[in-house]
Amino acid sequence: MTSEYPERRRRLAEEIASRKLDALVVSALPNIRYLCGFTGSNGLLLVRRDGWSLLLTDPRYEIQAAQEADCLVKITRKPLTRALPGELARRRLRRVGFEAGRLSYAEYQSLRMALRAPVRLEPVAGVVESLRLLKSDAEIEAIRRSMAIAAAAFQQSMRAAREGIRECELAAELDYQMRLLGAEKPAFESIVLFGENAALPHGKPGTRALGPGELILVDIGAQHDGYASDMTRMAVLGTPSNRVKRLYQIVLDAQSAALERLRPGITGGMVDAAARQALGRHGLAEYFVHSTGHGIGLEVHEIPRLGKGDRTRIRPGMVVTVEPGIYIEDWGGIRIEDTAVVTSNGCQVLTPAGKELLGL
Amino acid sequence: MTSEYPERRRRLAEEIASRKLDALVVSALPNIRYLCGFTGSNGLLLVRRDGWSLLLTDPRYEIQAAQEADCLVKITRKPLTRALPGELARRRLRRVGFEAGRLSYAEYQSLRMALRAPVRLEPVAGVVESLRLLKSDAEIEAIRRSMAIAAAAFQQSMRAAREGIRECELAAELDYQMRLLGAEKPAFESIVLFGENAALPHGKPGTRALGPGELILVDIGAQHDGYASDMTRMAVLGTPSNRVKRLYQIVLDAQSAALERLRPGITGGMVDAAARQALGRHGLAEYFVHSTGHGIGLEVHEIPRLGKGDRTRIRPGMVVTVEPGIYIEDWGGIRIEDTAVVTSNGCQVLTPAGKELLGL
Repeated sequence: MTSEYPERRRRLAEEIASRKLDALVVSALPNIRYLCGFTGSNGLLLVRRDGWSLLLTDPRYEIQAAQEADCLVKITRKPLTRALPGELARRRLRRVGFEAGRLSYAEYQSLRMALRAPVRLEPVAGVVESLRLLKSDAEIEAIRRSMAIAAAAFQQSMRAAREGIRECELAAELDYQMRLLGAEKPAFESIVLFGENAALPHGKPGTRALGPGELILVDIGAQHDGYASDMTRMAVLGTPSNRVKRLYQIVLDAQSAALERLRPGITGGMVDAAARQALGRHGLAEYFVHSTGHGIGLEVHEIPRLGKGDRTRIRPGMVVTVEPGIYIEDWGGIRIEDTAVVTSNGCQVLTPAGKELLGL
Repeated sequence: MTSEYPERRRRLAEEIASRKLDALVVSALPNIRYLCGFTGSNGLLLVRRDGWSLLLTDPRYEIQAAQEADCLVKITRKPLTRALPGELARRRLRRVGFEAGRLSYAEYQSLRMALRAPVRLEPVAGVVESLRLLKSDAEIEAIRRSMAIAAAAFQQSMRAAREGIRECELAAELDYQMRLLGAEKPAFESIVLFGENAALPHGKPGTRALGPGELILVDIGAQHDGYASDMTRMAVLGTPSNRVKRLYQIVLDAQSAALERLRPGITGGMVDAAARQALGRHGLAEYFVHSTGHGIGLEVHEIPRLGKGDRTRIRPGMVVTVEPGIYIEDWGGIRIEDTAVVTSNGCQVLTPAGKELLGL
């Protein structure tokens, strides 16, 4: 993907110029990685309206930045917000955008107080994120590989799911398998929930042991080449009850309905509505307490949001999750989730794993 | 630790009152966890000057918040910064502090624009973090257990370190062992670097295979009960060269010097100077490109900083890392790191692992 950085900065530069800014200060680490390849934990990237770029970081990353970043690098011992004003002054940059959602109020103040020349700081939102909205072929391939790793780890790990295993043990197994299969790390804290715990959409694996007949919810993703994937699958130890079978089928139908709706030209809200209506036909809409999905890429949660009323137009190259679920306190929950890329006339699911309720 | 929440909020309330604020909006997730036990990924905690507290979160966390938070909970579908102003107005809170370093500029603006009544928002920095600076006995025990898990995982995993193993495979093994030993997760991305890669203080484990005579740097920590630990150990496959032995001893001496200096009454800068001077006696100060250490607790990096010129007074109950290192491009690096708690007359190392250069 290295070869894409200059083109990405060129597109950003156009955006900067069109906003009548002299430069943009990029502070979000995934955005910095997207634009120049640097993966350190401390950096500010200054991008000028002509595309010229400078990465500021600290001495811990001197060697790493020289290896990774394909732009100028300056190492400083100062807080980066205090080192930046000198660079702005040296290059006579006057109207400078900053990422309002990615800089803390305190960092903003620190930057403002350190300005030497009469610089106007302008909050901008989602500029680099908008560039990241449509994935390149190389990015889609990275997500596909990341997804394949997670799916293979799921298949491998479920052999360990037997009576008495604890949620945290199965989660450890999943993470280990993802790593062995080539993931840099889990893309997020793997969710493994048994029985009534599955009623927590974002629950954390604990010490609860798996009992006979109980539901298993597994929500995992890998990170590979920096790119995340996301999937949720369900299994049951033994024979599922009729209620489980019925509810599972309803959620599966809702997920299929959303995937069928996912295509260029419609809105994120319409994809969400497809899932919500399908659940609503069975009186279950109130148990669906989150959005139907979200964009995914260098971060687990990106735009677009497939949520109620969302007006983002779906376009080819978007990669999103589709994950309706129902959550019933003291009983449990059911969620089915794929990662999918939008194509010219529909979508392609990137999650290579069957969606039947897995019996163990 | 559940029983400590009311007392923590009482101490925070005193701080709020002493700053002549009506309330504080806590937005940093570790601070929210510290004050009420909620571990979700989306929350705002409003703490009034009399200690009354309200947690705002979204429907995904309805069940979890009811289980975890020991204060009032309100579930909202709005962005939390837009739901908050109604609560402020209802309770006639006029002077309201917010965590300037923990709220993005955009969130601050969103909150400000949504205010109904004439509320004055006042940036505050490090208020809850200051409460967290001195650890309770229960917190120290949590860190001790977290450290014991990491050390045991290190011992267990190094058996897998043989010629040809890749950095990422050894890292996967370490993470897996930490999880099996009871960690919720690694406290940070485990660092495993071989040979010249160890010159990167924050390098990421890659596909480099271990060769004979090569150095292995392992920097890991566990998270247990929410609390982090941090340690770095070195090993060598086969017989270390004389240069490695000599440099290792110098770094070990520097680490010992810093640990000996660590006691109540001195400053963070003085601990750092002890390590820096020890390295400087061998002309190696320029290769030590980071601080000597940092506080650790619910987060991996907390105050105090044991860095150049830092004036924080060291006090009993602080838990810090002590981790001098040297980094030589194209050759490699050496770092030795313990987590230690400051006692009444010195410090106690919490890392139960020998510090000899481990031969494999």
